[in-house]
Amino acid sequence: MKHRPMSEQLGPVHVVGAGLLGTSIGLALSRAGVEVWLSDLNNEHVRTASGLGAGTPYAGGKARLVVVAVPPNHIADAVVEALDGSGFVTDVGSVKALPLAEVGDRVSEATLARYVGSHPMAGSERSGPLAGTATLFEGRSWAVTPHVHADPAAVELVDALARTCGAEPVRLSPVEHDRAVARTSHVPHLLAVLAAGQLNDAQPEHLVLSGQGVRDVTRVAAGDPALYGQIIRANGAAVGEVLLDVRRHLDGIIAAIDGDTEVDPDEVLEVILARGGDGTRMIPAKHGGPPIDLGTVFVAVPDTPGELARLLADVGEVGVNLEDLRIEHDPGRPVGLVEVVVAAKVTESLVTALEDRGWRAHR
Amino acid sequence: MKHRPMSEQLGPVHVVGAGLLGTSIGLALSRAGVEVWLSDLNNEHVRTASGLGAGTPYAGGKARLVVVAVPPNHIADAVVEALDGSGFVTDVGSVKALPLAEVGDRVSEATLARYVGSHPMAGSERSGPLAGTATLFEGRSWAVTPHVHADPAAVELVDALARTCGAEPVRLSPVEHDRAVARTSHVPHLLAVLAAGQLNDAQPEHLVLSGQGVRDVTRVAAGDPALYGQIIRANGAAVGEVLLDVRRHLDGIIAAIDGDTEVDPDEVLEVILARGGDGTRMIPAKHGGPPIDLGTVFVAVPDTPGELARLLADVGEVGVNLEDLRIEHDPGRPVGLVEVVVAAKVTESLVTALEDRGWRAHR
Repeated sequence: MKHRPMSEQLGPVHVVGAGLLGTSIGLALSRAGVEVWLSDLNNEHVRTASGLGAGTPYAGGKARLVVVAVPPNHIADAVVEALDGSGFVTDVGSVKALPLAEVGDRVSEATLARYVGSHPMAGSERSGPLAGTATLFEGRSWAVTPHVHADPAAVELVDALARTCGAEPVRLSPVEHDRAVARTSHVPHLLAVLAAGQLNDAQPEHLVLSGQGVRDVTRVAAGDPALYGQIIRANGAAVGEVLLDVRRHLDGIIAAIDGDTEVDPDEVLEVILARGGDGTRMIPAKHGGPPIDLGTVFVAVPDTPGELARLLADVGEVGVNLEDLRIEHDPGRPVGLVEVVVAAKVTESLVTALEDRGWRAHR
Repeated sequence: MKHRPMSEQLGPVHVVGAGLLGTSIGLALSRAGVEVWLSDLNNEHVRTASGLGAGTPYAGGKARLVVVAVPPNHIADAVVEALDGSGFVTDVGSVKALPLAEVGDRVSEATLARYVGSHPMAGSERSGPLAGTATLFEGRSWAVTPHVHADPAAVELVDALARTCGAEPVRLSPVEHDRAVARTSHVPHLLAVLAAGQLNDAQPEHLVLSGQGVRDVTRVAAGDPALYGQIIRANGAAVGEVLLDVRRHLDGIIAAIDGDTEVDPDEVLEVILARGGDGTRMIPAKHGGPPIDLGTVFVAVPDTPGELARLLADVGEVGVNLEDLRIEHDPGRPVGLVEVVVAAKVTESLVTALEDRGWRAHR
């Protein structure tokens, strides 16, 4: 089987739910030559998605793999229905333990073996089939979450689905997955929501002091409230546990600010702040390698088309690898400040090289 | 006086504290031809800063303006000492009401008139004179915070200081300033600290699911804990008030997750999440203009030097103005995903234009 092309191994694939994710999966698989069938409660979505080339409307037939791509609250029903067939089944929801438990309550162990949940770490602030794209999963992680009764062939097939869509499968148990995303996604999302929410009570003219910091902290809070509400409720156990810890630390901060602590409040606050710094250094660096020390070089860039490209061409010529890049604009000035994030050990030489090329740069 | 060059109007300037900010101010003023004198409790700092060209070691003499650039807990003492002279005095600390009150308790109203606090919205995760640079303030806002008894000439002089350093003065009362930065800076910082802090309790192998979201939310939490502790304690009244509100909303989230609400918990959660989305849209767009609807175009970019520059050159040729740009790396793949943030109304045409130029792009 290893020598048969991926498209033969994988298809036909039946994608249930032709929204952003379902349509994107259909497009990616179709591009790879896999036969894709599409269905959705909303016929309009199926017509749109198939018009984009994501597959053909489902007209009956036995799929090798059913991909359930429906809203969180409907996943269990759709998976149970898909298991009525004889093929393998996965879903692409953001939470894994709850739908597995719900499905497990309703089907036999032998049937459950054909279901392996998964979760591509990709999305968009837009939704619906028109937002779908074959490249949505390019270069992303895709969690594959087998349960103890899972058929190894099902697990392999879901791995193949992820790879065919251009993603990298990451193996975790459903419970591990939910604990992981509670900490890496859901709780940070909720704290971003709290940071953004309190801006509603600011005097609008005060918000001119907003810098890159508050923009970064709050960005993800712009996501769809109904969707995130379902996700967070579905992962309530894992998220709730972490939030109780977060509240304990928040209370610690409030007490320290009030001077209401047994030891020196400055020390209490510093310990909490230092713990945050430690946390930032636990996030893996790019390419899944060990975290590396990063530094930032600030460059003043005229806000005219082409200048940023010229800067990055110069950075490329110096041979420095960009880890990240941020653009900060300012009120009232035609100059943008660009933060070039690189390995800490090359910041000094990068500043020198950029200054040699006529840029105003500093660390 | 309007026709005299800026350097004559402003100097001599005595900078007290030759750390990151003091040295940077010295460098920026010296570059503009202003005479700068430097002092610091640490003679080594003065030698380093003057060696960099930030000014000459203070040897007595009457400064027209004294700029106090010392750690938060020492600002009031240094301002009172500076007011012993006959010149105008400002400080560049992150909190304005508390040092003003402390100074006001110790000097006459006539003397206090010569002091106008200020706060450049610039910094670095590094500190000390070696981190100083003449371009630190380029394109940044610089809050200028007159009190009711302030001499208009002092206010004008601090405006001139900000402009000479390349920043844009923004006028606010000290109390308004502190309320503004509590919401736009200190509270978001603390929530980033809480988001980052809980990552310490994650299983390290779970952190591979970290995406751009958690990186953005937690980035600012990497700042110096001792410095931020002082800042937050100094702005305790304003920060504490907002944090009580934040805790109330956090309790609302926890109750909704537990299903412990009077109305439908899904609705409660959705209202809190929607409020966060509203908050993100209150942050002003670049150049201080009204917020505009932004959209993101995702582009797959090979992780080799020069490719990003080529992409941005193409974006520039299309004539689209970049609002922001983010780079997301992935575990195990040599492709980076670049998020190009532009006005929402041009995302569709940008995708088409980039695809025409051979990029894999989507919204």
